[in-house]
Amino acid sequence: MRLSKKIRGIKPSPIRKFFKYTEAAKRAGKKLYFLNIGQPDVKTPAVFMEAIRNDLREIVEYGPSAGSPELIEAVRDYYRRYGMDFSQDEVLITCGGSEALRFVIDCICDDGDEIIVPEPFYTNYGAFVRASGGVIVPLTTRAEEGYRYADRDALERLVTPRTKALLLTNPGNPTGVVLTRDEMERIGAFARENDLFIISDEVYREFVYDNKAMSGFGQIADIADRTVIIDSVSKRFSACGARIGVALSKNKDLMENLLKLAQSRLCAPTLDQVGAAALYRLPPDYFDAVRAEFERRRNAVCEELSKIDGAVFTKPPGAFYIMVKLPVDDAEEFLLWLLENFDDEGESVMFTPAEDFYATEGLGRSEIRIAYVLNERDLRRATELIRLALSAWRGTLADASRRVGTG
Amino acid sequence: MRLSKKIRGIKPSPIRKFFKYTEAAKRAGKKLYFLNIGQPDVKTPAVFMEAIRNDLREIVEYGPSAGSPELIEAVRDYYRRYGMDFSQDEVLITCGGSEALRFVIDCICDDGDEIIVPEPFYTNYGAFVRASGGVIVPLTTRAEEGYRYADRDALERLVTPRTKALLLTNPGNPTGVVLTRDEMERIGAFARENDLFIISDEVYREFVYDNKAMSGFGQIADIADRTVIIDSVSKRFSACGARIGVALSKNKDLMENLLKLAQSRLCAPTLDQVGAAALYRLPPDYFDAVRAEFERRRNAVCEELSKIDGAVFTKPPGAFYIMVKLPVDDAEEFLLWLLENFDDEGESVMFTPAEDFYATEGLGRSEIRIAYVLNERDLRRATELIRLALSAWRGTLADASRRVGTG
Repeated sequence: MRLSKKIRGIKPSPIRKFFKYTEAAKRAGKKLYFLNIGQPDVKTPAVFMEAIRNDLREIVEYGPSAGSPELIEAVRDYYRRYGMDFSQDEVLITCGGSEALRFVIDCICDDGDEIIVPEPFYTNYGAFVRASGGVIVPLTTRAEEGYRYADRDALERLVTPRTKALLLTNPGNPTGVVLTRDEMERIGAFARENDLFIISDEVYREFVYDNKAMSGFGQIADIADRTVIIDSVSKRFSACGARIGVALSKNKDLMENLLKLAQSRLCAPTLDQVGAAALYRLPPDYFDAVRAEFERRRNAVCEELSKIDGAVFTKPPGAFYIMVKLPVDDAEEFLLWLLENFDDEGESVMFTPAEDFYATEGLGRSEIRIAYVLNERDLRRATELIRLALSAWRGTLADASRRVGTG
Repeated sequence: MRLSKKIRGIKPSPIRKFFKYTEAAKRAGKKLYFLNIGQPDVKTPAVFMEAIRNDLREIVEYGPSAGSPELIEAVRDYYRRYGMDFSQDEVLITCGGSEALRFVIDCICDDGDEIIVPEPFYTNYGAFVRASGGVIVPLTTRAEEGYRYADRDALERLVTPRTKALLLTNPGNPTGVVLTRDEMERIGAFARENDLFIISDEVYREFVYDNKAMSGFGQIADIADRTVIIDSVSKRFSACGARIGVALSKNKDLMENLLKLAQSRLCAPTLDQVGAAALYRLPPDYFDAVRAEFERRRNAVCEELSKIDGAVFTKPPGAFYIMVKLPVDDAEEFLLWLLENFDDEGESVMFTPAEDFYATEGLGRSEIRIAYVLNERDLRRATELIRLALSAWRGTLADASRRVGTG
């Protein structure tokens, strides 16, 4: 009994390999600051649970496969605020943004088909594409260039007869990059000329700072037939456990085929859709306080990071992540050493080594991702701990090389 | 922009093609009895909503990818009652039984791999297998033999080097067939000798009548390493909209690889898992009243069906479906005629033509599936309406042939 080649090609989640180290650090009595989590610490708006508590149905029954009409309407109204008009048939409710992504990729990829993805990228894209039999073709970006990727020539060089789509996160995870309107149009022209789908994962849409307006791919008319937007209540409304996502597209063929996959799994969770409709109906100013809080945090992290000699980073314009290139050869090795051997007044820190965000072998070894989902004071302290740990680590390396020198 | 071959190979849900006819019948003022629905009319036990209403978390956050520890423990305790001891790592909580099936099939099938499925079968199996690139190889069963399928020779004839698994529903949808212990052992020996997985969809487990004990594939020790059980709260606890399913297996390799897919979609819905844990903790006698009610319904349907001249059926030992071969050439044509042209005192009936439950072209045309999810009186009336409609339909055909004869 052999399992499929495609499942063998999917890597296990990197989170697991660090678990025993963080558990050991906790057992040793260290207080850990977790900078590796994609779960916002913001409270889920009370309307979510209220709507569910007030639901008096006696049978928690199947809903329509495309989503409940109430939630679809709420999503449509939300998009109208941004000048995007989607008909009912152009909205599909899914079990989280993850299911939306899997369905879209399954509709596009056969064995060996290629999807261009700017790297570093959200690691689960790798699983979704491999599960469909497809291949990720990475567009490598660099810390020194702020991980920007709307480079027409670089994109063109990656196109082959098997290229089917471009998949991107905007605002970006793990980079925090937000595309400018000009960059989006450049990418749109590239997709049009090479006849590609654009899968735009916009689950961080409102997390855009410095008073900039977020613009999404749904606002660019001449690529409407090739654009799919992925949305979710997880980040925007701090409702990750609701597992409610959305796929939106004006491509009728794609939507009809997505519906076949949606029908095969019957429906998204009924009660969570009731709660999610209440979330999408929140007034537009709901997010202002959340955004202001995350902007403060971003600024605090960047201020603390700027005190680290040799750290390379760009203040990210969006999402709640920042990628940092540290003056180390191997960030994973540094992290494991830190969890086992370092503390400052009984405190230590956990972050995500970035190598797993790259498809290209060997890239990202010096880089880490910080998720700034802690309050400002904790964030400053956690970033300080990285700085202190780096000094201690350099001291250890210097000692070791002295020992080698005299040994 | 071409979509994938595999998505093109998936058929749209047959439900849609009848929708406009049932809507038109309703608009014409007919009262329709729906015998085509897989959603039990039993109330969801109150503990489900109580557990959710009493959950006071302020952030509806991600849970563990394998499922919440509370739900996993409740599932393990439930299985212990049946003498099946699964460790924590042998239980994976999914978004409905559908996701469990998709994940298992993705773990097993590459492009062109084959899965043997007794036909008629639950139509969505077709979508899951095709989405993985696999192929369903049908083991044809017959109305005249009560749709039984544990035929060793017939199974052997279907095995090729690409055969990876046998997928079955026990108790059966759409057939209501329940395997005997002897049949299960025969199938087990077949799987062992041909080195196949057994994917046993047991979501109807408690729906077994005539005082017979249900035995599942998890109780057969010598195939434990090749058996995967699919479970769900949907049917047993009338909680279809909760989207909580389970995959259970003692095959470590499979469970580790299933976990990779589970991690890629983060988690099953958090609150529904809270409710589902309360459902799995219901006392064993919860289901007695439900079972007694469905047994009465089954008996009522069979009694009414026996009044239809030429109808072929076997009283099904389990689930809440019955397949009937009607004295018509094309059950779909009969249904559409019935919805458009037939009523008795303003009432008509909807059922499922069975052709879509077959992978073999042309089979099942005369057959229909009845889901007995209505109360006994309505069921008797609905079945009577099928009988009356058949008489009227025969009259129409006789008229037509007379007209042809004299034309």
